[in-house]
Amino acid sequence: MVRSLTILGATGSVGRSTADVVLAHGEELRVEAVVGGRDAGALAEIARRLGAKFAALADESGGGALKQALSGTGIECGAGSSAVLEAVEREADTVLAAISGTAGLAPTHAALKPGRRIALANKESLVCAGAAFMADARRLGVEIMPVDSEHNALDQALAAGRNGDVEKAVITATGGPFRTWSRERIARASAKEASAHPVWSMGSKINIDSATLMNKGLELIEAHHLFELEAERLDVLVHPEAIVHGLVQWSDGALTAGLALPDMKVPIANALRDQGRLRMSLPRLDLAAIGRLSFERPDEARFPCLSLAKAALKAGGALPTILNAANEIAVEAYMAGRIGFYDISEMVGSICSTFSGRAMAAPATVADALAIDQEARRAARQLIPA
Amino acid sequence: MVRSLTILGATGSVGRSTADVVLAHGEELRVEAVVGGRDAGALAEIARRLGAKFAALADESGGGALKQALSGTGIECGAGSSAVLEAVEREADTVLAAISGTAGLAPTHAALKPGRRIALANKESLVCAGAAFMADARRLGVEIMPVDSEHNALDQALAAGRNGDVEKAVITATGGPFRTWSRERIARASAKEASAHPVWSMGSKINIDSATLMNKGLELIEAHHLFELEAERLDVLVHPEAIVHGLVQWSDGALTAGLALPDMKVPIANALRDQGRLRMSLPRLDLAAIGRLSFERPDEARFPCLSLAKAALKAGGALPTILNAANEIAVEAYMAGRIGFYDISEMVGSICSTFSGRAMAAPATVADALAIDQEARRAARQLIPA
Repeated sequence: MVRSLTILGATGSVGRSTADVVLAHGEELRVEAVVGGRDAGALAEIARRLGAKFAALADESGGGALKQALSGTGIECGAGSSAVLEAVEREADTVLAAISGTAGLAPTHAALKPGRRIALANKESLVCAGAAFMADARRLGVEIMPVDSEHNALDQALAAGRNGDVEKAVITATGGPFRTWSRERIARASAKEASAHPVWSMGSKINIDSATLMNKGLELIEAHHLFELEAERLDVLVHPEAIVHGLVQWSDGALTAGLALPDMKVPIANALRDQGRLRMSLPRLDLAAIGRLSFERPDEARFPCLSLAKAALKAGGALPTILNAANEIAVEAYMAGRIGFYDISEMVGSICSTFSGRAMAAPATVADALAIDQEARRAARQLIPA
Repeated sequence: MVRSLTILGATGSVGRSTADVVLAHGEELRVEAVVGGRDAGALAEIARRLGAKFAALADESGGGALKQALSGTGIECGAGSSAVLEAVEREADTVLAAISGTAGLAPTHAALKPGRRIALANKESLVCAGAAFMADARRLGVEIMPVDSEHNALDQALAAGRNGDVEKAVITATGGPFRTWSRERIARASAKEASAHPVWSMGSKINIDSATLMNKGLELIEAHHLFELEAERLDVLVHPEAIVHGLVQWSDGALTAGLALPDMKVPIANALRDQGRLRMSLPRLDLAAIGRLSFERPDEARFPCLSLAKAALKAGGALPTILNAANEIAVEAYMAGRIGFYDISEMVGSICSTFSGRAMAAPATVADALAIDQEARRAARQLIPA
């Protein structure tokens, strides 16, 4: 049976990998709509390649260029937030939500429709507004398929048992570019050095989060919402080869692990599975050729962002939302060369402390979450040296 | 809900580990009957510890000793094959079948009763009579729960998808005591050297099979029957640490693996799960403490038994039955010092060649399988130097 798919964030890294997966499965997947941010040319190109029926550009000013680039193709298009909403509203069995950052939260949330599946790559839907987002998904009977390699691996491993039998779910981290660096050396690291991710090629903000290990902290928060596992049942393990992406420790002593070569097409294809899995002609993992897999405990002294995220997850309420907002501002400042590496964790810790006194409940709606997010960003900006 | 359990092979290594698991779960598991081989004292002791209702000793001559050892306990008992059959016939939700060798085939087969579960540790049920055994299990609606660590790991990993999406199921081997030895050195190895298993403590015959890698070949045959996977979708990987026991490569590029510390209580507890898993207070796997896991391809030049088993599995028909029978005789002769290490594979290969000309179908019944087994043993015995 042909399933219809809408791709939010079609011109980004996950969107492009999704296009590759879809193009290999034309008989199973048909693209209804594609949504991009600013690059009209790239969006038009992807819409044509995928045979989409509709293309929407978030940036209203690019509407003319998009229309021109699609003229004669029969592909409808639009620009601005109403066009994005139209793309989300069009009938589709699955929506792959890969708009990055807080900008992706509203369209991803709007994509929750009864009976639909959401292949979720927008982290903010869970980190910033997890409780509200998942409550709405459950209420509407929307199945959330995680696209992140770690959560996708856990999703598969968790099939081997019941939530009540999970003792611990563990996501792995490569350890980032500073895994073997001393704290002194890390303290002086430039944003360029922090951006050199050892395995994955991703956006620059995510690369910094990977260097601070905040990325893993945010992923713990995501895992909490996706799998209904409290902080005590979630952990991080450093695994530089990025082959084992997630492990589940069961109550009977057995573990189930999810593995794959580090290629986003694997978790994307898995998240787009229906009754059965898609067939992907990608290189297969050859453990004998790799020879060895190594593991170590994350060092929270050198990577305090991980501790901060764990503490926010444990404290719950609005703290994960606040942590995420403060981190975005701090990372921006670090990338702009305005603060040092360890100022990121200092700033995030300081903002979390400031807000934690207010005993804020978890935001009940996505709008509430965005309001708290804005408030935390404003507070964080004030900590940046002029 | 309390479930009732009967343990066949209660005094052996798997039986004793099962007793430990049961004793930790008195509120969930009640022991109906225990069956032992020759050691009346050990059987009586286990029957008392487990509060079994009935104890059966296979060796008829030990009946008096068993009766005496159980006098005053209220535990019924008997000896000889009729007593074993009585134990099997008594009502029990699950039968853990751990009588080792061909002797275990008939009682394990007799234990197939509608609605029951069989926690299967008797290899011969699958290696010698797999097609017939599994056909009967399916016909009677008996669920087979594999107890072997490799198959138990695969069983859990396979929960993450459908049979049709399995590209390859891989079981791991420690590589045995000769993993790093040259062929010349292995050729001169004594049975005592071959018995020094690096990880598991098992019976002596199994230790030799582990040194020749025949053990893994037989496990491929078992996996074929348990999971309905043909030879082309099964493979072996050497993994000296014995932490990853089985891996499933899926069609979408992802893999699911089953891990555990090498302790038989883990797969036994898993095989005794019902709706949920049992809670076992055993040490947990700490990958960071272990540090690394290593993998290599098995060397079929130094370990030709693995090739022979793969060939027998691929050829099908009665060849796996014949291979297994010839191997048992050859290993006996090796352990008695009558043949050398590589004579084992020579003998097995020779017997397989002899019989393969006859195009024998897979034995349709367990009795047929046992008849072929006997015929192959006779032929194998003739190859042993006087």
